[in-house]
Amino acid sequence: MRTGLFGFGRAGKAVASVLLQSKATHLCWVIRKTKTLQHRSVPEFLGIESDEPGLIFPRDEWSNQQLFDQQPVDVLIDFSSPDAILSYGEEAARREITIVSAISEYPDSTIDFIKNIAQHTRVLWSPNITIGINFMMLAAKVLLSIAPYTDVEIIEEHFKAKKETSGTARRIARALSLPEESIKTIRAGGIVGRHEILVGFPYQTIRLTHESISREAFGNGALFAAINLVSKPKGLYSMEDLLVPYFNLQ
Amino acid sequence: MRTGLFGFGRAGKAVASVLLQSKATHLCWVIRKTKTLQHRSVPEFLGIESDEPGLIFPRDEWSNQQLFDQQPVDVLIDFSSPDAILSYGEEAARREITIVSAISEYPDSTIDFIKNIAQHTRVLWSPNITIGINFMMLAAKVLLSIAPYTDVEIIEEHFKAKKETSGTARRIARALSLPEESIKTIRAGGIVGRHEILVGFPYQTIRLTHESISREAFGNGALFAAINLVSKPKGLYSMEDLLVPYFNLQ
Amino acid sequence: MRTGLFGFGRAGKAVASVLLQSKATHLCWVIRKTKTLQHRSVPEFLGIESDEPGLIFPRDEWSNQQLFDQQPVDVLIDFSSPDAILSYGEEAARREITIVSAISEYPDSTIDFIKNIAQHTRVLWSPNITIGINFMMLAAKVLLSIAPYTDVEIIEEHFKAKKETSGTARRIARALSLPEESIKTIRAGGIVGRHEILVGFPYQTIRLTHESISREAFGNGALFAAINLVSKPKGLYSMEDLLVPYFNLQ
Amino acid sequence: MRTGLFGFGRAGKAVASVLLQSKATHLCWVIRKTKTLQHRSVPEFLGIESDEPGLIFPRDEWSNQQLFDQQPVDVLIDFSSPDAILSYGEEAARREITIVSAISEYPDSTIDFIKNIAQHTRVLWSPNITIGINFMMLAAKVLLSIAPYTDVEIIEEHFKAKKETSGTARRIARALSLPEESIKTIRAGGIVGRHEILVGFPYQTIRLTHESISREAFGNGALFAAINLVSKPKGLYSMEDLLVPYFNLQ
Repeated sequence: MRTGLFGFGRAGKAVASVLLQSKATHLCWVIRKTKTLQHRSVPEFLGIESDEPGLIFPRDEWSNQQLFDQQPVDVLIDFSSPDAILSYGEEAARREITIVSAISEYPDSTIDFIKNIAQHTRVLWSPNITIGINFMMLAAKVLLSIAPYTDVEIIEEHFKAKKETSGTARRIARALSLPEESIKTIRAGGIVGRHEILVGFPYQTIRLTHESISREAFGNGALFAAINLVSKPKGLYSMEDLLVPYFNLQ
Repeated sequence: MRTGLFGFGRAGKAVASVLLQSKATHLCWVIRKTKTLQHRSVPEFLGIESDEPGLIFPRDEWSNQQLFDQQPVDVLIDFSSPDAILSYGEEAARREITIVSAISEYPDSTIDFIKNIAQHTRVLWSPNITIGINFMMLAAKVLLSIAPYTDVEIIEEHFKAKKETSGTARRIARALSLPEESIKTIRAGGIVGRHEILVGFPYQTIRLTHESISREAFGNGALFAAINLVSKPKGLYSMEDLLVPYFNLQ
Repeated sequence: MRTGLFGFGRAGKAVASVLLQSKATHLCWVIRKTKTLQHRSVPEFLGIESDEPGLIFPRDEWSNQQLFDQQPVDVLIDFSSPDAILSYGEEAARREITIVSAISEYPDSTIDFIKNIAQHTRVLWSPNITIGINFMMLAAKVLLSIAPYTDVEIIEEHFKAKKETSGTARRIARALSLPEESIKTIRAGGIVGRHEILVGFPYQTIRLTHESISREAFGNGALFAAINLVSKPKGLYSMEDLLVPYFNLQ
Repeated sequence: MRTGLFGFGRAGKAVASVLLQSKATHLCWVIRKTKTLQHRSVPEFLGIESDEPGLIFPRDEWSNQQLFDQQPVDVLIDFSSPDAILSYGEEAARREITIVSAISEYPDSTIDFIKNIAQHTRVLWSPNITIGINFMMLAAKVLLSIAPYTDVEIIEEHFKAKKETSGTARRIARALSLPEESIKTIRAGGIVGRHEILVGFPYQTIRLTHESISREAFGNGALFAAINLVSKPKGLYSMEDLLVPYFNLQ
């Protein structure tokens, strides 16, 4: 699976590191906005032994057509910015290249654009692309359908400097039909990220807890998405869509 | 749903208390081995306000035929001893009374007997009948099918006096194909019961934790089983069998 | 150590059960407001094997003088109501009987009264008399003096029906100079009680967690208080006062 | 406080980063074994804005006399190797430079050497130099002196690749007079490090938990040690020695 990566910020670097260390994928190139590190090799830059090229190109060096012709890939992974997909999306869809986007938020018009190109190729968009969080959300949904009379609390912990309530916690709240205001927000020191869904029964308590160790978790999620999409029909997917079939135990 | 309960030990009492407080069921009577508390009323004995009779009978006061004729029930809940089902099972099956047994272990010959009567009525047998533990086990199975490369650890905590490894933890280990020896056993003070399934990803950790508060959790599990069996065809079920359909999110 | 207990509500019963099972103390009698269970024996009522009398008397059967003359004790443990100490306090202080009170709140005038009698005997008053909570509060104080730059969060979990913020959590907040509004309150199912003090450093996190299993914890605390007071001079004490010397490791 | 750092491996880099960001100290230089990064500036290398020089020198570029003459410091922090102190120790002690060593293990002869130089200057040696772990160990000691009848369990969690039982957990066990074999060892995924001391009472449970986020925690510990040593008399100290006075609440 030949892969191209858009974005080389903190998340992008972590994702590149996971892609390079996986045997399931081959990192061909990375596109970033600026000219910094232009034509450097990602393995060399990150200090990872690998014979995958992973060359860094500034966004305006290639037209999409040139890029996809001369550096062909099967999957695009996008950790860059909300506008990037508007530039590469159509050409990628025309060539049926799979797109995996982890952009937090898109304007409505871009969402329409994405729905459109998803008629021609497989597109996955998930603001939180970790396996753990998406699993936990679905598992909690199952539990609440089994025991609708229980009390649910969402507790999220992050580093002191994080101002607003975690977007992931808000997504969990929406998925479980809980008011966002009910989320309990803990801010202390350097906690990377911890989400707990507490389900209280009269005589027993269940806690589903997700602890983030580092941004590389996004890389494993993106990789999982890319591998799982291969066997899917064209269309627009979320991480949840990919996980739901695993829940069918029958 | 008219209910009869076998067993009035510590678990039996806790189950009776839950049944009495539920509107979904009507506790008609309790059968216990000894003559202690004979003809007393369970609500009065437990100090629970209820107009359900819940009369206590010693096991040998009635023949099963008399009992089921004069005190008819829809469901039998069995928290007594492994031999009880041998006496009431056939007559109950003949009348298609649903049977819910939470007996920890049955000899092989009794299991054969149960399989036999399950051709004529709905029988559920589960050594740990709490919703929480069975949910957690299935959720962990799902997660391991999504991420088979993760590391799994089972940690169980109980009061100091509990000698052997928790049977529930051993069941979880078997369900997840882990060696029983790998269970980490904590024994301290008066901990009622805590089971944790820890799933370690390279860059994130998921913990599924179940904390027992009291034996009444068995009552909620038995109630859940009784209610769910109503709509099922005849046959032998486990708690897992009843939960599996809820996992189908499609 | 001959002990008399005031109060035989839910906490009082739990405390009596701990006292009966301890070899350090001898439960002579229990005083309760009403005539219910009058002259019954506590060991027999609670089903605990013990040759300690533990007779139950209604409050108005004896004058304090009669009671302390004919049923002499070394320690009074009070889990009854805020007005009780006003009736027995003076007579007990005159006889230098140690008093351990776990009453949640006293009116100011009663506090003055207590300060007064504490000039003549050893009196301990602590609204939360468990060893665990008081230890945790002091340990957190130590940690914050070592690392004043850390972020502290208090999280308390209790059963759904508990309306207001836990009084214990508010006491912890005051002790650590945190605003009471900052306490994170979780309400779900049947959680008996859980208090966590989370201390966030930039690169490490410390959690001090206290989990209540049952009200009997109050009994162990009262017993600890009674035993520790024996060697103290007359005066008014709190649980913290008794624990502070243990923190001196030099 | 002018500081010199020995060692620029993974721990050394993390410590340097903390020192540079602290206003309490001024990082003058770093000594490393090899010539790699020779004469580079640590702030520039780590991408931290700072006007502190933090120049990197290979070990054999300077004699200790030259180094301490031309690049004078008040404190030496040693995260290098067990032999380093043998080369710089005597000269540093002669100049009464404070020494903070976080070397895991020293041969007996080196320990004798350290005791010797500690007659002339302040030396701190602690294999685990984090504030959190040392606080937790002392707090547990206090708790066990208050409640010697409780059950204690030590649970440590680390990344899968960590082979042996955590040295920190073994130190905790020794400090609490528990057999090292009783430590419960969890190995899964990428867990950075988690130590829990669980203290079980009959009716309550206390958990003291330490979670490592990153190696920078060593930097905060070393800084705390350096600052606290300033006001101490000459001699050999451990982190515990520095923390003990904070526990005296009287």
